[in-house]
Amino acid sequence: MVDLRSDTVTRPTAGMRAAMAQAEVGDDVYGEDPTVNALEAEVAALFGHEAALFAPTGSMANQLAIQVLVPPANELLCDADAHVVTYEIGAAAAYGGVSSRTWPAVGADVDPELVASMIRPDGYFAVPTRAIAVEQTHNRGGGGVIPLATLRELRRVADAAGVALHCDGARIWHAHVADGVPLASYGELFDTLSVCLSKGLGAPVGSLMVGSAEKIERARWIRKRMGGGMRQTGILAAAGRYALQHNIDRLAEDHVRAARLAEALAPFAVVAGDGTVQTNIVPLDLTKCALDAPTLGAAAREQGVLVSVLGPRIARLVTHFDVDDAAVDRAIEVLTGIFARC
Amino acid sequence: MVDLRSDTVTRPTAGMRAAMAQAEVGDDVYGEDPTVNALEAEVAALFGHEAALFAPTGSMANQLAIQVLVPPANELLCDADAHVVTYEIGAAAAYGGVSSRTWPAVGADVDPELVASMIRPDGYFAVPTRAIAVEQTHNRGGGGVIPLATLRELRRVADAAGVALHCDGARIWHAHVADGVPLASYGELFDTLSVCLSKGLGAPVGSLMVGSAEKIERARWIRKRMGGGMRQTGILAAAGRYALQHNIDRLAEDHVRAARLAEALAPFAVVAGDGTVQTNIVPLDLTKCALDAPTLGAAAREQGVLVSVLGPRIARLVTHFDVDDAAVDRAIEVLTGIFARC
Amino acid sequence: MVDLRSDTVTRPTAGMRAAMAQAEVGDDVYGEDPTVNALEAEVAALFGHEAALFAPTGSMANQLAIQVLVPPANELLCDADAHVVTYEIGAAAAYGGVSSRTWPAVGADVDPELVASMIRPDGYFAVPTRAIAVEQTHNRGGGGVIPLATLRELRRVADAAGVALHCDGARIWHAHVADGVPLASYGELFDTLSVCLSKGLGAPVGSLMVGSAEKIERARWIRKRMGGGMRQTGILAAAGRYALQHNIDRLAEDHVRAARLAEALAPFAVVAGDGTVQTNIVPLDLTKCALDAPTLGAAAREQGVLVSVLGPRIARLVTHFDVDDAAVDRAIEVLTGIFARC
Amino acid sequence: MVDLRSDTVTRPTAGMRAAMAQAEVGDDVYGEDPTVNALEAEVAALFGHEAALFAPTGSMANQLAIQVLVPPANELLCDADAHVVTYEIGAAAAYGGVSSRTWPAVGADVDPELVASMIRPDGYFAVPTRAIAVEQTHNRGGGGVIPLATLRELRRVADAAGVALHCDGARIWHAHVADGVPLASYGELFDTLSVCLSKGLGAPVGSLMVGSAEKIERARWIRKRMGGGMRQTGILAAAGRYALQHNIDRLAEDHVRAARLAEALAPFAVVAGDGTVQTNIVPLDLTKCALDAPTLGAAAREQGVLVSVLGPRIARLVTHFDVDDAAVDRAIEVLTGIFARC
Repeated sequence: MVDLRSDTVTRPTAGMRAAMAQAEVGDDVYGEDPTVNALEAEVAALFGHEAALFAPTGSMANQLAIQVLVPPANELLCDADAHVVTYEIGAAAAYGGVSSRTWPAVGADVDPELVASMIRPDGYFAVPTRAIAVEQTHNRGGGGVIPLATLRELRRVADAAGVALHCDGARIWHAHVADGVPLASYGELFDTLSVCLSKGLGAPVGSLMVGSAEKIERARWIRKRMGGGMRQTGILAAAGRYALQHNIDRLAEDHVRAARLAEALAPFAVVAGDGTVQTNIVPLDLTKCALDAPTLGAAAREQGVLVSVLGPRIARLVTHFDVDDAAVDRAIEVLTGIFARC
Repeated sequence: MVDLRSDTVTRPTAGMRAAMAQAEVGDDVYGEDPTVNALEAEVAALFGHEAALFAPTGSMANQLAIQVLVPPANELLCDADAHVVTYEIGAAAAYGGVSSRTWPAVGADVDPELVASMIRPDGYFAVPTRAIAVEQTHNRGGGGVIPLATLRELRRVADAAGVALHCDGARIWHAHVADGVPLASYGELFDTLSVCLSKGLGAPVGSLMVGSAEKIERARWIRKRMGGGMRQTGILAAAGRYALQHNIDRLAEDHVRAARLAEALAPFAVVAGDGTVQTNIVPLDLTKCALDAPTLGAAAREQGVLVSVLGPRIARLVTHFDVDDAAVDRAIEVLTGIFARC
Repeated sequence: MVDLRSDTVTRPTAGMRAAMAQAEVGDDVYGEDPTVNALEAEVAALFGHEAALFAPTGSMANQLAIQVLVPPANELLCDADAHVVTYEIGAAAAYGGVSSRTWPAVGADVDPELVASMIRPDGYFAVPTRAIAVEQTHNRGGGGVIPLATLRELRRVADAAGVALHCDGARIWHAHVADGVPLASYGELFDTLSVCLSKGLGAPVGSLMVGSAEKIERARWIRKRMGGGMRQTGILAAAGRYALQHNIDRLAEDHVRAARLAEALAPFAVVAGDGTVQTNIVPLDLTKCALDAPTLGAAAREQGVLVSVLGPRIARLVTHFDVDDAAVDRAIEVLTGIFARC
Repeated sequence: MVDLRSDTVTRPTAGMRAAMAQAEVGDDVYGEDPTVNALEAEVAALFGHEAALFAPTGSMANQLAIQVLVPPANELLCDADAHVVTYEIGAAAAYGGVSSRTWPAVGADVDPELVASMIRPDGYFAVPTRAIAVEQTHNRGGGGVIPLATLRELRRVADAAGVALHCDGARIWHAHVADGVPLASYGELFDTLSVCLSKGLGAPVGSLMVGSAEKIERARWIRKRMGGGMRQTGILAAAGRYALQHNIDRLAEDHVRAARLAEALAPFAVVAGDGTVQTNIVPLDLTKCALDAPTLGAAAREQGVLVSVLGPRIARLVTHFDVDDAAVDRAIEVLTGIFARC
């Protein structure tokens, strides 16, 4: 099987498994797991923040940040396709009581002026805006990268209004590799970030929230309420440390392979957005295609290629650690064959 | 004082006071207040629905509908300036656990195709959309009226996706009078509506949620949880019945007066939107004006004219029962004077 | 009909109706209703607190206080039959996110030492206790009055632990009249109180939350979120002011009548608790009776006497403004007749 | 260090680490992790239920069950010391909107008749009770075991009232070993259970919720909202499978060691409850002791023995996999020495 559904499907390598098997552990609820503590310190340092906190999933890492930044009945702004209001099952509202308004999602683009116009000040009548969230890279935005200059402008907007800025950085490693922006440069622009170890980096489980010591302290308490206060978590943290050491730079290969997939499919299907693939995601817009997404998905699966069906006319291919050149060749052969026959 | 801040400031007339003083009442928590029961039946009938429920405020009437239509962690779509996500203090998220995404607010306009593209289906991964809310007339949209044809198209969109449609109809009376659309024609397009007695209609307190008998039954229980299960509510309902009998048609006068205000101020300030005033709200866009909104507000107040300051460069004038022709004359004199001097 | 179901069923008198008809009003969301402002000041003064806030119901007044005193995911302690965890439809948890634990309900009794043993300190592991609520008089506790000495001891417990004390004082007027304790003496023991105008005092609608200026300010914002920010509320506040002036002392009559009912029924049914009736509620325990509560209720209704059925074997009679001596005579005749025949 | 703070501190053995290192894994969000699927099937089978669901913590497993059984604004009954209202940081209220009332905690005892008297029926006025939770063994109840006969009586109470019964079975393995009751016998009494792999059983991370296929399906969606939808979870599940195979029966040793501790300390401190230690927890009541709990804790720590300080006068010792006979000898020597000197 060539599994292009998501970079979440990667399996740990022998080296990573060995790291887990030998991990020194302790009870992390008591703050005594040395491997977790080391990982948290390393990730905080990468982004130039004071502290970080391990969480079992990216969704929890995002929700911890949102609950820390936005009190119940206050407001979060994000784009209409953001993971935090799409794929986290309503947690911001249902668990955080957080009200959200959204700007239109156009790939990974953000218009700081539009965002500025949506901010509502503190006061008695309107729901006050407390935080803005962006997604880097943007999953439903086709793996697009928000330019550093845009993020800096957004930071100015946030500062002017006194609101916080959160980065859903599940795939921020990809932005770093694609644009060559140091992680610390991203770090300095955000009050909080979430980063994921178990997508492109290939660890089995885990994300981290990054922020100030005070925010992480509050998040630690909320994490327990979310049911994320695990015990000998060092087993998982060891895989994360291994991933940080070995698997960031190699993401460039995934980007090359995604570009190759996009190029091969361009004659048959529209690559969504402006047609360029910036990182490891190839979004296919089948609106003008004879084939709809479920049909494509089913036909490909029959020939051993798995793709994501995100809507009636939207499909998605994602390259990752477990997809090598041969797998991309095979996927191209199968998918172009299907398109050619329809 | 000429109070143009909002149509919420109207005071009950002698006739309305007499109706209240003579109202037959009972304990409405037990369902035994005859005046409330009569009002609820009348309002339901006006909109061609099975039932209606009295609520102390428009915010509560909206939130009852939202909580009935959208389970916690499910989604409501509305525009980014809608009252339900702006002026109801985050209740949908904080109390209903309702996740919201918004389309851009451009006056009272709604683009059914854009709304359709935002709907997320039921399923395991994304937050499912359960309801769409529109506001008729639209408060921050300058009292604009959504055309009936647009609403019908939106109904088709909602039906195709199996989601509910709610109308925040706090000022639906104004749309009815301005466009001549029967209230029942609006009623048949929505699963639920909220309508307000205490804005243009001049009653001191009260709104109603309108919907099916089953939805109203559920709303009745939620109303108790919201703290809205009042006792001898007939006192208030009597004012509402009086308002429905006497004060709907006269809204046309408020519309004429608002148009007159807009015309007089057009040389000095931009009337927001396309410059036309459709009902009783005159939104002033001071972006290109020498005067900002707080300065205008303060200067006018000094001369006995009250206007709403909605933002640094947005002001709002609202005509209503307690603003007669002389008051409009006086407001024009004061406001044009202020503009002329700056 | 002799309606002994609850003191919520009282209808406004001619004098009260006149007060409402002549009330000076304004827009209370803008803080401009003079009658509301006067009422709030009077009630605050009665209890020796800085401020008070009108709410449409006692449930809302309680929930405002709870949301002010207890942040989400923190804890409220109360007894297991308290109105706040029984009859407010889960609002403390569902809207305030407030966790609750309860001590056993034994009439209106409170054991300060038991309460002290339940308090959990602030900290990382256990849910911290933030407030204790008591009910004076206690509805399900048979209208019993908590002695002042007990409340003082409870205040010491609360102070020692740094937690707040709230009084659900819907019927605190009855305690004041029965025990002769000044309202201000109650006031000084509690951080917040709710008091009701529309039960024994006979106003059609309304309760107030009482507390510090800072707490009331926060409650005002939450009231809007609860949908309780009404407009020309002075109509209702006028009835409340009238009730405070005319209807407190006369509650003694209701107490005498309740005692007379209890005495007459004692040979047939057990008056719950220790058999003494302290205020205007007569709780009947039919556990050892041939008659169950629904049967009693139905038989009495047929003969024009309404009683509350609170459980299979619990019934409740409540005296109030609209029940005079003749009505009590009639109720005794009907009820003893029913008991005698079974 | 002899760590008697909790059985959560156990570290995985070499055998368990090997099982993790070799675990076959897949993406569990897609339901494709074979080791997770095997573990869930095994645990479901142990308790005779249709299905089970892996969760990162016991708190999440409990909260999933509570959110499945109790809709927002409905009620859960449990004892006042239950983990679900004490150590889960208010999640039931804050995230589930669940209202709770409690019966007094007296060790692990449950009085089914008292519980029955607290249940409130479905209806318009009072918050309806939907579920009852018990804890087996009871953590704050000194590791006490609720007798099977009591649980059967409680099941009858629940059935009669139509409410669900949940078991917080984090340490149900201990009850099974201590009382010889088959796990399936416990399973048949409860609608849902949570069971923990990472306390007595020694796995690093993980708990499971057990229940019907339909309930587990709903819990799976809620788990994602809680941030518990992990990916290659099989790493953790492999440890859990190993624990189930190797570490249940050996809990008897922990019980013997706990009894030995209790016996040695009895001359100096009161073993809370009736003085008997049923499983692996030794609760010390220092009320009548010269030594308070923090002082005891600090003195013991200085000599290399860690105990839990649960209150000013409550300490707790817990035996587990990493505490052998020599460690117990050492703990006895240190603790009796401290007591003897004070």
